[in-house]
Amino acid sequence: MQIEIVTIGSEILSGRTLDTNFAFLARALEQASVQIGWHTTVGDTPERIAEAVRRGLERADALVLTGGLGPTPDDLTRRAVSNVLSRPLQLDEQVLEHIRERAARLGRKLPGSIEAQALLPLGAEAWLNRLGTAPGILILHHGKPVILLPGVPQELEELATEYVVPYLRQRTGRHVETFTLRTSGVFESALHEKIGALPQAWPGATLAYLPSFFGVDLRVTATGTDPDQVRRVTGRAYDELREKVDAVIYAEGTTTMQQVVGETLVELGYTLATAESCTGGLLAKRITDVPGASRYFERGFVTYSNASKIELLGVRAGDLEAHGAVSAPVAEQMAAGACERAGADVGVGITGVAGPEGGSEEKPVGTVFVAVASPRGAAVRRLHIVGTRATIRERSAQTALDLVRRQLRGLPLEPSLEG
Amino acid sequence: MQIEIVTIGSEILSGRTLDTNFAFLARALEQASVQIGWHTTVGDTPERIAEAVRRGLERADALVLTGGLGPTPDDLTRRAVSNVLSRPLQLDEQVLEHIRERAARLGRKLPGSIEAQALLPLGAEAWLNRLGTAPGILILHHGKPVILLPGVPQELEELATEYVVPYLRQRTGRHVETFTLRTSGVFESALHEKIGALPQAWPGATLAYLPSFFGVDLRVTATGTDPDQVRRVTGRAYDELREKVDAVIYAEGTTTMQQVVGETLVELGYTLATAESCTGGLLAKRITDVPGASRYFERGFVTYSNASKIELLGVRAGDLEAHGAVSAPVAEQMAAGACERAGADVGVGITGVAGPEGGSEEKPVGTVFVAVASPRGAAVRRLHIVGTRATIRERSAQTALDLVRRQLRGLPLEPSLEG
Repeated sequence: MQIEIVTIGSEILSGRTLDTNFAFLARALEQASVQIGWHTTVGDTPERIAEAVRRGLERADALVLTGGLGPTPDDLTRRAVSNVLSRPLQLDEQVLEHIRERAARLGRKLPGSIEAQALLPLGAEAWLNRLGTAPGILILHHGKPVILLPGVPQELEELATEYVVPYLRQRTGRHVETFTLRTSGVFESALHEKIGALPQAWPGATLAYLPSFFGVDLRVTATGTDPDQVRRVTGRAYDELREKVDAVIYAEGTTTMQQVVGETLVELGYTLATAESCTGGLLAKRITDVPGASRYFERGFVTYSNASKIELLGVRAGDLEAHGAVSAPVAEQMAAGACERAGADVGVGITGVAGPEGGSEEKPVGTVFVAVASPRGAAVRRLHIVGTRATIRERSAQTALDLVRRQLRGLPLEPSLEG
Repeated sequence: MQIEIVTIGSEILSGRTLDTNFAFLARALEQASVQIGWHTTVGDTPERIAEAVRRGLERADALVLTGGLGPTPDDLTRRAVSNVLSRPLQLDEQVLEHIRERAARLGRKLPGSIEAQALLPLGAEAWLNRLGTAPGILILHHGKPVILLPGVPQELEELATEYVVPYLRQRTGRHVETFTLRTSGVFESALHEKIGALPQAWPGATLAYLPSFFGVDLRVTATGTDPDQVRRVTGRAYDELREKVDAVIYAEGTTTMQQVVGETLVELGYTLATAESCTGGLLAKRITDVPGASRYFERGFVTYSNASKIELLGVRAGDLEAHGAVSAPVAEQMAAGACERAGADVGVGITGVAGPEGGSEEKPVGTVFVAVASPRGAAVRRLHIVGTRATIRERSAQTALDLVRRQLRGLPLEPSLEG
């Protein structure tokens, strides 16, 4: 089944707002084994919306429209769709009831215009919206589903997950399984070389390499009409991939490196302290992105100046002078100092040249040292990261977290696919 | 002039990669006074690319295609466009020379396939790419510009700025002026109420309200055929907006709050230290996002545990007990302690409930205290932020920076549009 997604919104077309709704929908619809064939974006103009619907009905098997279902005058989707499909708007009592109940529950006086959201094109079905007043709308037009969703991200995500995916999955009659293995520390080309033609032996399954700041994710999607067969292929792909590249996998699905490190610390009953120079707080920020990080995160030192490295972490002035602030001894002393001064079990240190200025021949921009000190031993690694200031900082933080993970779990400290 | 932008790339259509190229192009093309009428995304499929080009030529005045110009087999744009426009590919000697020179300069052996990038549709003009091998391509097809750009973001951005915008601006014969005023601390509705119908008196100019984590940006775009007239209108809009909402403007253009604070510190010759609880390093991270922040940023304390607040910042244990870690006295002592312990001129502190857990009736999730201590005085503010953990943390950091800015510049400490 080939789907067209139509985004409606002048703010998206202006380039000022990234279309994260589309990204969410595209990924969610994978679960329904439908393919996104086209994505079209138009502004809040009735003629353009109508043209997009006509075009979509010509070429796609189903249409999903997002945005323009609010109560304000520039929310034109409902009326434009009603016109182009010649399905006059009619009041849906159930939706109206839902809107009124919601207003009563919130104790708010909603503007009268909000009740326009209870108008549906003739023959449409409403999917009630738990998080707002605009329902999702399903119209079967000459046998083709035309689905309208509100543009508020949480509402769209909820309706897509609760209604759109199950509905389309049932229509396609296909079963889908998918999993993601997250790797860190090796290039896509190295993974590719190791994995090679393996996926060719997985009938109905595909492997995608998804590189980002944080490493390369490996995503397998298998589809077919026989659920057992799809599950068998997925299981086989999982085992074979794990066998090839297990050494660089740190997580599955959408689990982040900071979550994995957090879980490891909780498991071992350890606490953590950070000491950062070039990442300037990013490492601590990522660790505390995880709700409940206070169970294991004790404190962080952002030691930007040399004085702060000496005073807060006990880095030796002689080593700063002899080796420079960006050096292995300083990174080691930062990790050890963080640990000791915080009374934490584990310390992690980062020092480097994030650029764009400050590089030298010996230590060019992108030279970073990451270090760990823990009851399971201490270690330091020298990195050379190519990229912008943001890339260098993000990769440094990711690699430092991976070093902590590897040290605590007794894994080899350098990611490698050898052997 | 109504333009259609066509993004070519299966990775975009899969929802795994956000289309930041489109966002960049849309904003850049504003400078050429063209309107984006449609944005279409298709996968790396020759038929879909061809269909998008045919459709675009029917409805738009110009077409810009991005992506699919690389040397690998799934880079199909060049050939698909050549076919649909019946313009056979021909070797362009100048582009070939450029590719070979680049390879020689980098001292790399490039794969032979890279020379395919020197093939251009008959009658096309090449815009040489300073950052890569794939040139921008301009085809005037029956008088309509069809422009092809590589999908690598830096290359696209460079070619768009250097060639596409000037070329289209010349074609439209229209002059454009634009400016952005960045506000923080007040809602869009409050700005709207204050500004009201003002823009109706600016002929040829529009005002856009652009809300984000960081506040609401006000962007004015004026266009016309007479450059003097356009400049006059822009100047008037600028003055009138400044007059209405000056009290909440912190920067112009794309300047960030952390840059403004950094400039202020440099101007005054002050250094800064941070003390963070719920933001967990985000504030320090944002300050050090700015290259050269070491001129004024001394160090940061991420004091997640109560013990660290006491030991590192000298927060009084009695106040932690009496008022709780999320309280005005603790925020004040964090700011003052950071300042004193770091030997810095200015200290800034944040403590709050970022959620999703940890709220109480008295201090629900989103309750945050931000404080500043400086030679120009000390201050603390209580905030209530509605949103996710990420929103609460980002807004807290932004508001803390704004408080520093206001304190150092002798401005009212609470953002307000009154009076």
